[in-house]
Amino acid sequence: MAPFRCLTFLTDYGLEDGFTAACHGVAAQIAPQIRVVDITHLIPGGDVRRGAAVLAQTIPYFPPAVHVAVVDPGVGTDRRGIAVAAGDAIFVGPDNGLLSWAVSVAGGPLAAISLTNKELWLNAEASPTFHGRDIFMPVAARLATGTPLAAAGTEIEIGDLVTLPPPASRVLDGKAEGEVLTVDTFGNVQLSISAADASSIGIGYGRNVVIRCGRRVLTVPYRETFGSVAPGELVAFADGSGMVSLAVNSGDAAQRLGLPPGAHVSVSAGS
Amino acid sequence: MAPFRCLTFLTDYGLEDGFTAACHGVAAQIAPQIRVVDITHLIPGGDVRRGAAVLAQTIPYFPPAVHVAVVDPGVGTDRRGIAVAAGDAIFVGPDNGLLSWAVSVAGGPLAAISLTNKELWLNAEASPTFHGRDIFMPVAARLATGTPLAAAGTEIEIGDLVTLPPPASRVLDGKAEGEVLTVDTFGNVQLSISAADASSIGIGYGRNVVIRCGRRVLTVPYRETFGSVAPGELVAFADGSGMVSLAVNSGDAAQRLGLPPGAHVSVSAGS
Amino acid sequence: MAPFRCLTFLTDYGLEDGFTAACHGVAAQIAPQIRVVDITHLIPGGDVRRGAAVLAQTIPYFPPAVHVAVVDPGVGTDRRGIAVAAGDAIFVGPDNGLLSWAVSVAGGPLAAISLTNKELWLNAEASPTFHGRDIFMPVAARLATGTPLAAAGTEIEIGDLVTLPPPASRVLDGKAEGEVLTVDTFGNVQLSISAADASSIGIGYGRNVVIRCGRRVLTVPYRETFGSVAPGELVAFADGSGMVSLAVNSGDAAQRLGLPPGAHVSVSAGS
Repeated sequence: MAPFRCLTFLTDYGLEDGFTAACHGVAAQIAPQIRVVDITHLIPGGDVRRGAAVLAQTIPYFPPAVHVAVVDPGVGTDRRGIAVAAGDAIFVGPDNGLLSWAVSVAGGPLAAISLTNKELWLNAEASPTFHGRDIFMPVAARLATGTPLAAAGTEIEIGDLVTLPPPASRVLDGKAEGEVLTVDTFGNVQLSISAADASSIGIGYGRNVVIRCGRRVLTVPYRETFGSVAPGELVAFADGSGMVSLAVNSGDAAQRLGLPPGAHVSVSAGS
Repeated sequence: MAPFRCLTFLTDYGLEDGFTAACHGVAAQIAPQIRVVDITHLIPGGDVRRGAAVLAQTIPYFPPAVHVAVVDPGVGTDRRGIAVAAGDAIFVGPDNGLLSWAVSVAGGPLAAISLTNKELWLNAEASPTFHGRDIFMPVAARLATGTPLAAAGTEIEIGDLVTLPPPASRVLDGKAEGEVLTVDTFGNVQLSISAADASSIGIGYGRNVVIRCGRRVLTVPYRETFGSVAPGELVAFADGSGMVSLAVNSGDAAQRLGLPPGAHVSVSAGS
Repeated sequence: MAPFRCLTFLTDYGLEDGFTAACHGVAAQIAPQIRVVDITHLIPGGDVRRGAAVLAQTIPYFPPAVHVAVVDPGVGTDRRGIAVAAGDAIFVGPDNGLLSWAVSVAGGPLAAISLTNKELWLNAEASPTFHGRDIFMPVAARLATGTPLAAAGTEIEIGDLVTLPPPASRVLDGKAEGEVLTVDTFGNVQLSISAADASSIGIGYGRNVVIRCGRRVLTVPYRETFGSVAPGELVAFADGSGMVSLAVNSGDAAQRLGLPPGAHVSVSAGS
């Protein structure tokens, strides 16, 4: 495995404490030549699904990298720590599904290791509540500098990795059904319905899209961008990850619509 | 144009999603040797004026750099994407005035290009809602590594660049008139009145300054620093950017005074 | 003094303005080869004690570094700016106790300098309200690149450095007494009682710990990690810094218990 130039880091550690920085310090000790890029540390505490979605949508834009992700409500219990090779990347974190969508985006798992080799940890004794600092980051930093994946511990059958169920999404009878995948900082509501699927049922720019959510039925213009509607108006569009999303131009669609992640939604072509 | 060592990045993308990180990933792909420094990603959504003020006050402290700034409510509409050379820097972002104050601080525009050359984009197809990732950052990263500015697209007449009106500021009859330029994280209220202008009308350390805002008249001590007044007391001072500012020692002046950005203010020398 | 590879940065500047970035710009000018790692910039404004606690708990994980910390309500008054050598690190910041716990963790002060040599500042004139940009960061960056500590100014007697009193902590009659040291982003409550002290009075995993705070008496399971109790349940554990801490699994212990930093607490072994 050739060394990497880049290491990314996603957690729910927040930015107020020194937790994230302690991990950066560990990376600076072990892999001083590697660029460390924070993806985000503001995943809501323990929200594995949200972490998985952000990771999967961000990693396609990186060069070959080791991606460390820690959203880990089960830290210190018997859930495994893992490193998974996929595409030209290695993913390191807890085996709770957090990595699974990103691994899938990267091309699917090639090999997986349970991080049982304590020689790659920061010390043989890891804090039961801080595996990010004591296990995941030091192992990742060593992998980034060229330690072979197999040295990190015991091989795991790929089929034994914990995976999150993929977001609901199906196309049937001229209707695409899905759910709210994420809500971003702007309040934009990203659906688990791809723009390609929407296109396959006749949803196209310049027309309207009919959105059903519970008993509500909304007819919304489908446009290339927010600015195509007046400020305060609702608009549907294909977002930067190729998914159908809902926005309010200069406003907050999630708040307006009351649509949290996981809410069931269907879309069909309007007039 | 010689290559740069440093690339800065300012947006309203927030820190909760992977948007900022995706742009960092693009920079890591294209310009792995260049240091990328975040200025801030917490500009309030679409607040071009606030972004312009923060950018203009920060860039003087950087070495020769490519500065990418994206506060872009018109993304995907027909507003142009631009790169502007000024001083020893290049500014990259939307042509909506966001860059204009910083360009001015850097010495004024030397040349401006509309970013029409898709070969410098991430791909020929840019997401209509994510030009930061697909156009601005990849173009900036290539410029930072030595691609000539002219290669980025079509030349623009400098006089055709969109500029924000400079903040109101004039000195007349022993009075300096201006407005609230920004409010920082501490609640300090920065006026669009320079300490030099204040000095020219007799405002000096150790004396008082009389501040008029609507019908209100406040007499406030003008001191070198917060600590010169008791905790909870209001103080006026020349801030780190050389502008007259109002603070409450260990408190929040903007909240105390109810002075939002844009509010009209005048100052004169007191006793 | 050999040059350093790493420079860390902790402040209460927040992330909304360009303050932190201006300091990064100064570092990029003076020490372009040095990796700058942000510890946090979200110390509550002027909270020297909180800054001291986060700094002291984070720096053990860094390679030899220059650590710049600025929580400085007395900026511009006659409090000194200092650089202190301790262990293989140098600490730079205001002489208000902020650095004292970290210096102690690093092995105690070896030498201390008052930053009076203006040739190492950004300019001879420093803004009275922005020593981070104009004094601390430029001096730190020069020290990081090999300028000898003694060149930064006048030597100070080590005994004259301002220090924070160490957090209350004593063991007596089978009881460990202390206080709430910090509350982290998750609402975990860190006590100033070490796990080693707790162990010395018979508190061990699998048993309960009795916590007294004012008139309240709580009996809480002492476990290795959050996940050992049901979601919503209170648990005591030895945290990543080796201190006794209180958490609610998937919840906020500080909110549940109403225990702010500084609150007096004692613990003893339960059944």
